[in-house]
Amino acid sequence: MELYVQKFGGSSMRDAERVRNVAKIVTKTWDQNKNVVVVVSAQGDTTDDLIAKANELNPKASKREMDVLLSTGEQISISLLAMTIEGMGYPVKSFTGWQAGFLTDSTHSNARIRNINKQRIENELQKRTIVIVAGFQGVNRYDDITTLGRGGSDTSAVALAAVLHADRCQIYTDVDGVYTADPRIVKNAVKLGAISYDEMLELASLGAQVLHNRSVEMAKRYNVDLEVLSSLEKKPGTIIKEDASVEKMIIRGVAKDANVARISLVEVPDQPGIAFKVFSILASKKINVDIILQSIGRDGTKDITFTVAKDHLEETVEVLNANRDKIGHKEVLTDDQVAKVSIVGAGMESNPGVASKMFEALYSANINIQMISTSEIKVSVLIDINDAKRAVVAIHDAFYNN
Amino acid sequence: MELYVQKFGGSSMRDAERVRNVAKIVTKTWDQNKNVVVVVSAQGDTTDDLIAKANELNPKASKREMDVLLSTGEQISISLLAMTIEGMGYPVKSFTGWQAGFLTDSTHSNARIRNINKQRIENELQKRTIVIVAGFQGVNRYDDITTLGRGGSDTSAVALAAVLHADRCQIYTDVDGVYTADPRIVKNAVKLGAISYDEMLELASLGAQVLHNRSVEMAKRYNVDLEVLSSLEKKPGTIIKEDASVEKMIIRGVAKDANVARISLVEVPDQPGIAFKVFSILASKKINVDIILQSIGRDGTKDITFTVAKDHLEETVEVLNANRDKIGHKEVLTDDQVAKVSIVGAGMESNPGVASKMFEALYSANINIQMISTSEIKVSVLIDINDAKRAVVAIHDAFYNN
Repeated sequence: MELYVQKFGGSSMRDAERVRNVAKIVTKTWDQNKNVVVVVSAQGDTTDDLIAKANELNPKASKREMDVLLSTGEQISISLLAMTIEGMGYPVKSFTGWQAGFLTDSTHSNARIRNINKQRIENELQKRTIVIVAGFQGVNRYDDITTLGRGGSDTSAVALAAVLHADRCQIYTDVDGVYTADPRIVKNAVKLGAISYDEMLELASLGAQVLHNRSVEMAKRYNVDLEVLSSLEKKPGTIIKEDASVEKMIIRGVAKDANVARISLVEVPDQPGIAFKVFSILASKKINVDIILQSIGRDGTKDITFTVAKDHLEETVEVLNANRDKIGHKEVLTDDQVAKVSIVGAGMESNPGVASKMFEALYSANINIQMISTSEIKVSVLIDINDAKRAVVAIHDAFYNN
Repeated sequence: MELYVQKFGGSSMRDAERVRNVAKIVTKTWDQNKNVVVVVSAQGDTTDDLIAKANELNPKASKREMDVLLSTGEQISISLLAMTIEGMGYPVKSFTGWQAGFLTDSTHSNARIRNINKQRIENELQKRTIVIVAGFQGVNRYDDITTLGRGGSDTSAVALAAVLHADRCQIYTDVDGVYTADPRIVKNAVKLGAISYDEMLELASLGAQVLHNRSVEMAKRYNVDLEVLSSLEKKPGTIIKEDASVEKMIIRGVAKDANVARISLVEVPDQPGIAFKVFSILASKKINVDIILQSIGRDGTKDITFTVAKDHLEETVEVLNANRDKIGHKEVLTDDQVAKVSIVGAGMESNPGVASKMFEALYSANINIQMISTSEIKVSVLIDINDAKRAVVAIHDAFYNN
């Protein structure tokens, strides 16, 4: 029997009407003679409400206790969805992260899945039970509750699909697929029928905001067929799988990421190993660094500039200043009024001139480029945040309108 | 080192200000060189809000899924209280029911505690950590979440005090102790300094609503010293322990219980074993029956009248009608406009005339008695719910004002 894993995010579970809609999608899949495992996030604003409650009592609460608090959001969702499906007369059971066997490391608020003890879920599936699992959460080896951080429920869904050898992992969201650019910004953006893991990875990590890159990485590693589709409109979404490069577009899409901040370490000693020192310190604090630019040394010093997610900015600066003795920088400059705009496409490799076409589009739109980063299938530029939307439109026009 | 278990109910945890107040009481106890285990209920209206959400989707949801839903209430409470105590600079950790080792039977929504695996809590106490435990909840042997039903958090607290051999179990509520009658009804009601388990048991089961009888029964069985006191006023409460009968009052208090309904089975066959049949059927459905009255047989039939908790009325009638073939009754009559008023006191046994004094007080107040039930330390009468308050005042006056 085919097995589908279906994931529904917070907006798909927002209120009673939406929960009933999710129940319909799930039971319809079950009616098509498929087994179904459902992964859900916390309802709409629940997480924000819980964070507000915490901030009122202790804005610097430990991550352990925040995880205890926030994990209740998905627990509420699973029980409400299970009840709704019960009311429709289907066999169903809900499971929290620990009940579903999600064992993680101990990095509270940003834990990694170590293992899924799938026995209980498999037992229920053999009885044709619809299994509802709380996304975003697990337990460490001491039975402390952990959460998986941003994109956590997507990751939960893909991990379950991998260990259960599901035939497909469907990620239901409020958009109906992956587009060549954000349709809210670019009117003539085109929905992609299929896209490869690598292309989606670049798009996801670049702020296309459809899927978090952790989940796509995991899907690629375990070869899970993903589908991104709308929970509100009944039409096919975008399939993400290994050999999806059937369409002959040079670039797959233009993405904008505003969750980025630039940090400059000014006048660090121009010695071998200094970059290693900086980035290993940040890695030990689990801070991901993106674009890196190092100036040519001069007077025995050089500058190192890099970008991090905007919500890591404060912590990064704290870490750098706490390690000033080791690094030896004169000062730390920051700018959070920047955005990253990128083009992605596996066709790029065999098409020289893609990057220069992008730069030309930006030049014509009078947009200044602060930093550049390239990979085999991606070109990213860092620009002023106020230019970001114009940049996306200009680049999309350059590639798709001629 | 002394160990105190402190339990705070939903009203004590209602909002941020109240949570901070609880944190102060807890840390002050810790400062007095005591170890502290705290048991908390869900905040104020949380449980009602969750039930409303459930009813919107499925008013007949399974008890299993209701337990998954409702147990989030206490989980929110433990994390918020732990964060607050963290913010005050004390070592603290929160634990859900399953993390705290509460193993129960599988009676969802009304589970019994089977065992508490106390290892983890004891480890934390040895490190002087303040331990915050979610009341009202546990897991069965399949790791399904269960809740303990009415008065569940009190029961959690007493059970923990028993297994941890705590020096005292303090139940903080919005009243400051146990009174000879409800102070809202009887102006000159007197606060008791101490009361025995048996007396408290009768008062609790009779609607004094300070403590649920399950928790007092457990305290008696394991000889846990209980104290009922106010979380808002700093004054000593009422101690409940075995040898508390130091005060020389004949009756300990007058209690009113409006959560009661009367059920009459009309014209059941007048055969041996019929009462056994009726009450074993109800017992198998975990429906507790209180006062029982059986009429003299006549024309080969008799009537059996009994009382149940008001919220079990509907289920009881369903069960009786479903078993009509076995019981053979003609019809089921019900009345939920009744109340039980009782007097309690260990001194009763050696003071004849206590019951008649109570009946005289009711007669003088022109209140009709529908049913009577007595035990060694208690006399209860069932009366019209509209007479209940007047009855309490009249009885209290008869015993305390002369």
